[in-house]
Amino acid sequence: TIDITRLMARLDRLGQIGALSGGGVKRLALSPEDAEGRALVIRWMRELGLEITTDVIGNCWGIRAGEEDGPPVVMGSHIDTVATGGLYDGSLGVLAGLEVIEALNVAGARTRRPVAVAFFTNEEGARFAPDMMGSGVAQGALPLDEMLEVEGIDGVRLRDALAAIDAAGPAPVGALKPHSYLELHIEQGPVLETEELEIGVVTGVQGISWTEITVTGASAHAGTTPMALRHDAGAVMARIAVEAQQIAADHGPPQVATVGRMRVSPDLVNVVPQEAVMTVDLRHTDEATLQKAETRLWRAAQEFARAGGCAITRRTLARFEPVEFDPALVDRVAAAAEARGLRHRRMPSGAGHDAQMFAPNCPSAMIFVPSKDGISHNIHEYTAPSDIAGGAQVLMDVVCQQAEL
Amino acid sequence: TIDITRLMARLDRLGQIGALSGGGVKRLALSPEDAEGRALVIRWMRELGLEITTDVIGNCWGIRAGEEDGPPVVMGSHIDTVATGGLYDGSLGVLAGLEVIEALNVAGARTRRPVAVAFFTNEEGARFAPDMMGSGVAQGALPLDEMLEVEGIDGVRLRDALAAIDAAGPAPVGALKPHSYLELHIEQGPVLETEELEIGVVTGVQGISWTEITVTGASAHAGTTPMALRHDAGAVMARIAVEAQQIAADHGPPQVATVGRMRVSPDLVNVVPQEAVMTVDLRHTDEATLQKAETRLWRAAQEFARAGGCAITRRTLARFEPVEFDPALVDRVAAAAEARGLRHRRMPSGAGHDAQMFAPNCPSAMIFVPSKDGISHNIHEYTAPSDIAGGAQVLMDVVCQQAEL
Ligand SMILES: NC(=O)NCCC(=O)O
Ligand SMILES: NC(=O)NCCC(=O)O
Repeated sequence: TIDITRLMARLDRLGQIGALSGGGVKRLALSPEDAEGRALVIRWMRELGLEITTDVIGNCWGIRAGEEDGPPVVMGSHIDTVATGGLYDGSLGVLAGLEVIEALNVAGARTRRPVAVAFFTNEEGARFAPDMMGSGVAQGALPLDEMLEVEGIDGVRLRDALAAIDAAGPAPVGALKPHSYLELHIEQGPVLETEELEIGVVTGVQGISWTEITVTGASAHAGTTPMALRHDAGAVMARIAVEAQQIAADHGPPQVATVGRMRVSPDLVNVVPQEAVMTVDLRHTDEATLQKAETRLWRAAQEFARAGGCAITRRTLARFEPVEFDPALVDRVAAAAEARGLRHRRMPSGAGHDAQMFAPNCPSAMIFVPSKDGISHNIHEYTAPSDIAGGAQVLMDVVCQQAEL
Repeated sequence: TIDITRLMARLDRLGQIGALSGGGVKRLALSPEDAEGRALVIRWMRELGLEITTDVIGNCWGIRAGEEDGPPVVMGSHIDTVATGGLYDGSLGVLAGLEVIEALNVAGARTRRPVAVAFFTNEEGARFAPDMMGSGVAQGALPLDEMLEVEGIDGVRLRDALAAIDAAGPAPVGALKPHSYLELHIEQGPVLETEELEIGVVTGVQGISWTEITVTGASAHAGTTPMALRHDAGAVMARIAVEAQQIAADHGPPQVATVGRMRVSPDLVNVVPQEAVMTVDLRHTDEATLQKAETRLWRAAQEFARAGGCAITRRTLARFEPVEFDPALVDRVAAAAEARGLRHRRMPSGAGHDAQMFAPNCPSAMIFVPSKDGISHNIHEYTAPSDIAGGAQVLMDVVCQQAEL
């Protein structure tokens, strides 16, 4: 069984890398902090006797041999964070995987199948879009060549960022072929806490659509230019942002819409904005509804641009269809929670996860634990150790079944 | 009379300082480029034999003695620009003033009253708010002590920016006491060009209200946080920006409303914005209507913040009531244009100008020349040399009357 003290100590230790002064962490993908985090996790993998492989985009996994050769049961997640992230998002899944391995080692247990723990490059998409990039490339959902050329928010290309911290290894795309895939993650939302539950049995991941929209008008004097003669890129952007909110309101839950980035230039008090750049993040569990939201937003955006005398362009930063996890494996997660006496429910994931990249290729599932106040991507992200222990135990129980202990 | 070749050569020369690669200039107040521009204009003043004075906030004027002592007839404007400015805004008024002086020198003319040319610090307000800062301080409309502590958009205090380029002189506030004040400026709007006129006889300046609004919510995960549980500072900002447009539409011309600055943080695609900062520039020729616009905007902003679960604060960056110029002096401008056979009309100014700071203390007026396509605060700002010649000649004619040639 899981040793929660050992697991919490590892979470604490990794959380010191990129720690922010007010709490939380900043460990953007392929940053120097990410490099330090990778080195620490790889050291732990070595200490546990795992055989380590790193692929061309910096995904890394450590394998514990089974009685038989063959594809391993993989526990994975990520160790990169957003700019104002917490200690648990991603790290929990990786370090719980290490804890499962250590518990097996301590018990001297031998599984029939190999068991592996993995972390994937740039799951957050906070520096390089799209998110789930490493797992997406590994599982053939995203083209390696295109991803290597992606420019980060700081203008650095992924190819150069990988080189800068020497994160890439020799293993080719597709080298990781799991028997099945399991990911423990914090819920990052309020459902489990609100319903006083301990485990979320994740049935799938909602579809994700990220679009960057650029509006181009003309800068002009704020005092002398009559409203009718303006080409105000900022005003068009504002209307699009309001429309995104309206789409979410009209569709109702589970539709969400977020305008996370907004910038105008030249960004001066008495100059009509010449250019505005924004992002729109639309999500829904139903592909047809998600497409409706996308279509309505873009139609409205074009109409606002036309009415405002501006040009408008868009660029897809990420697009993932809704994913359903393997029903049999999902049932096993539910049964394991039940067997341990943990209060649980089935639920879709609102956030994207590496698990969704594995789902088309092998039986995959996820386990959620509660997030205090539903908060994540925030330095106040918190999950109680007792909840972490429950989630890690369910992970171990299902992995032992899958690997045939 | 005016020598347009000499005037255009000076405009070209000054325009090289801070020149942008695509055209236009960036000579933000008290920047290194502003320092270079000041040095050049002061050298020209010296070459024309003017007696130069600089005051504590870096306003600078050169006086050509008259037959009698006493307050000078002042021609003034500014040489700072916005970040993407043109060659004429401000510079024209200063360099036309130099040309009037040179024309008087060449003719060996002696006026009864002294004649002066002046440039004032930070008219644009693009780096430090409020705008018209130097002339406002000189004429007692803005408190020197408060202005010295103002922080620029780059975080530098005005006091330190003055020191950095050694722009301040020994003359105290109030040292410049004009007999009367005249300013030639580009219209920066489309009226004269549209009506095929050569001279705008400026009757006054509309009221200006600049407010910075900060909305504070909570960052949260874009995928997992239901819309109803969000505190989205960016969404609130967008609604305020749309409301500003609506106020302008409802009031109709001459009401203008501009949201020139918009920023969200952390500014990431999948994070609900925690903070949003924006500016609103409201202008109207009628003080009561301007107040109505301000009241409606702030009421709506508070309501949007309340509905969006966010806190909201505001800060006044600039507030100037509408100004009426001296009717007799305005009549003289009209008569001078008429006498030169220039097509002209009376009109209010949409932009703030140094002249409005002098209007309460001495007879003041302004002369506008057309702006191509009504464009200003833009690198494509342009006024034809023939229009510049007409405006400079009207300036000279009225100055000679005021100074009693
Ligand atoms: N789990 C998680 O935060 N993934 C980042 C991608 C997303 O925005 O859903
Ligand atoms: N003339 C001019 O552009 N002044 C700057 C202040 C304003 O925004 O009106």
